[in-house]
Amino acid sequence: MVDIATRVWNHKWKIDPIVRSLIDTDFYKLLMCQSIFRNKPDTQVTFSLINRSKHVPLAKLIDEAELREQLDHVRTLSLSRGESTWLRGNTFYGKRQMFSPEFMEWFEGLRLPPYQLERRGDQYELTFQGKWHEVMLWEIPALAILMELRGRAVLDQMGRFELQVLYARSMTRVWEKIEVLRDIPDLSIADFGTRRRHSYLWQDWCVQAMHEGLGDAFTGTSNCKIAKSREVEAIGTNAHELPMVYAALAKDDAALAQAPYDVLSDWHDEHEGNLRIILPDTYGTKGFLDNAPDWLAGWTGMRIDSGDPATGAQTAIDWWKSRGEDPLEKRVIFSDGLDVEKIRTLHAQFADKVKVSFGWGTLLTNDFRGLVPNDALAPFSLVCKAVSANGHPTVKLSDNPNKAMGPQDQIDRYKHVFGVGDQAAEEVVV
Amino acid sequence: MVDIATRVWNHKWKIDPIVRSLIDTDFYKLLMCQSIFRNKPDTQVTFSLINRSKHVPLAKLIDEAELREQLDHVRTLSLSRGESTWLRGNTFYGKRQMFSPEFMEWFEGLRLPPYQLERRGDQYELTFQGKWHEVMLWEIPALAILMELRGRAVLDQMGRFELQVLYARSMTRVWEKIEVLRDIPDLSIADFGTRRRHSYLWQDWCVQAMHEGLGDAFTGTSNCKIAKSREVEAIGTNAHELPMVYAALAKDDAALAQAPYDVLSDWHDEHEGNLRIILPDTYGTKGFLDNAPDWLAGWTGMRIDSGDPATGAQTAIDWWKSRGEDPLEKRVIFSDGLDVEKIRTLHAQFADKVKVSFGWGTLLTNDFRGLVPNDALAPFSLVCKAVSANGHPTVKLSDNPNKAMGPQDQIDRYKHVFGVGDQAAEEVVV
Repeated sequence: MVDIATRVWNHKWKIDPIVRSLIDTDFYKLLMCQSIFRNKPDTQVTFSLINRSKHVPLAKLIDEAELREQLDHVRTLSLSRGESTWLRGNTFYGKRQMFSPEFMEWFEGLRLPPYQLERRGDQYELTFQGKWHEVMLWEIPALAILMELRGRAVLDQMGRFELQVLYARSMTRVWEKIEVLRDIPDLSIADFGTRRRHSYLWQDWCVQAMHEGLGDAFTGTSNCKIAKSREVEAIGTNAHELPMVYAALAKDDAALAQAPYDVLSDWHDEHEGNLRIILPDTYGTKGFLDNAPDWLAGWTGMRIDSGDPATGAQTAIDWWKSRGEDPLEKRVIFSDGLDVEKIRTLHAQFADKVKVSFGWGTLLTNDFRGLVPNDALAPFSLVCKAVSANGHPTVKLSDNPNKAMGPQDQIDRYKHVFGVGDQAAEEVVV
Repeated sequence: MVDIATRVWNHKWKIDPIVRSLIDTDFYKLLMCQSIFRNKPDTQVTFSLINRSKHVPLAKLIDEAELREQLDHVRTLSLSRGESTWLRGNTFYGKRQMFSPEFMEWFEGLRLPPYQLERRGDQYELTFQGKWHEVMLWEIPALAILMELRGRAVLDQMGRFELQVLYARSMTRVWEKIEVLRDIPDLSIADFGTRRRHSYLWQDWCVQAMHEGLGDAFTGTSNCKIAKSREVEAIGTNAHELPMVYAALAKDDAALAQAPYDVLSDWHDEHEGNLRIILPDTYGTKGFLDNAPDWLAGWTGMRIDSGDPATGAQTAIDWWKSRGEDPLEKRVIFSDGLDVEKIRTLHAQFADKVKVSFGWGTLLTNDFRGLVPNDALAPFSLVCKAVSANGHPTVKLSDNPNKAMGPQDQIDRYKHVFGVGDQAAEEVVV
């Protein structure tokens, strides 16, 4: 029996929306949003899309009108009652009422601010301006929309069975990765793949496959909507945008040097336990840790998001030891460009030295490499970052010079202030 | 929106029936049925299930009650109005009214006769007795039921995503085979995989994938129900059961020697064109062709179903030449244990010598080799054959002694009558 109503309903949509919910976003965006809402409510920022893979001509692949329709659709979204109930009522990392009533009331009334879109050659210039805690919520939907529209442009050329076999192949690939991961004892791994996913339905499938295939070794997903619907843990803490904007707001070099610690001081007041995870690499891990206040050594763990991951983990372990902490009580979270082989190697190398977790992103939720002609579905490096705050440009250095961003004179200034010397360059794949 | 009615309807079924239609069978069964209905309406036969793969303990794998439920369900089936209309109205090989009004009237009133089922050690003894044209219609549903129940016993142990990935892997495998076949110029290939298919839905998927992937190179399916619903050609001519039963009915050795030609003489009166395909191997191809009447050389082609296929095809070509026929006007149909490599090799070897077609069976519709532990879904060699006619045992020799069947004294007698000497043994996989 055909469900006629469903069919008619589906055809009433003018478009097939890529993002259908304000909580189809990473959990840490909401945590950071609340922190900004409380601590920096008046900050004006500009976020901008940056395609680090210039060989992918987004403006040739994606129709501008379609892109506008998808972005416009996101601006129609508001928090549903069930989503609000879930955020208000859920336990996150064992803590109730993670989101304050004031924040929830504001969030319930939120619509995302306007966007600015212009074509420049073969790329799009897509920017968002306004209050930091509003603009920052564009990051994940904007990335997910561009990734999926690029994918749809390729899928549109394929036949019905070709499509089914494409997904058969990618499902098989994900499952074979899960079978490898299953053999790693005491693994702890989460899905961090929202922003560069192939599509929402595909990420949802990957999360369920991880859940069935890995059991307790799968600790959850960064995606709130999927965490809600699949009843798994929502995972995440904080990201580079906090120190980047705090740093841009610093009125002199002394304040700049202090900015990354101010971020974590604000965070310290708000969160505990698994949410106290240091992200040390925004302006170079080494200098950050050398100059860190002692209270930071009491935090639960550290996320390694750039540079050579084994070096980063060893640096963390050495630092904890130097501050009199037992690394076996600490957690290292690897989250940069992971795939199963890297996960297996890092786990083997560090599992007896420190608690190890993995935040697995693009190569979980968007590994269609080699499955279509010209590798037209290969993932690429697209980001959406704060580029200025209250009129001052932002800067990121990270532990990989290929991930640095900002005006060159400001990069030089930051390198000087944070004492960053030579860095080893690593290829940025995703 | 959930379609509540569909869900409730699905739960009303006591079982999930494996065979849901009397035309979920091979087209050549219906052609032969009509021929028997016309020429041998009073013949009493016994058909029996024979598991040539003794290492597969069917009675341990398949619950007897479940097997009975499935067989009982087949006995409730009768031709639907639409099915009857399709058989009456369709064009087969360009010919209208392939089935006579008398035959259709009989078929519309048919229910399949009773079965006898007993467990013998780890195997089932499943037999069917009665009028030849009724009993013979049990062959395909009985095989399909046993194949699928054995598969279900394995699938019952698997998780939801494991199942999805199993089908993802097998879909990928079929598609990769299709991609290989796509590169063969002027290919002509049909689905012959009903009897040992993994399941109806799986065969239906394979047919649709072949249709999309191969276009005109895919000439159709032997399965009438799928041919009807997917609007592709129904394919088939005749099988060993005709000469086997005609031979068993022969009153002396002279009549026995003539029996295979009597079959084709009856067939010749009923059919023309693509339906005039010689199946020469029942009692040895060489002797059959040496003694064949000249009018048989005028037939359209020959099906090679046992022995070394290249030898069989060359024998056919040589025979046509010896009878003054141009092999380039003739068709060879390979149908024994095919997979893509064999198809490619045979095509390369014979495409410039004769018209070449392929009837691809088990390794199209049931290739799950290596996809589950202990290879528990590997196809195996199950047949359902006429074992006696009017009280006389039937005999098959074929061009492969491993496919011979019948009492040894009768095999010896047949070998003598048909002048069969030494034969090369070939492993029977499917």
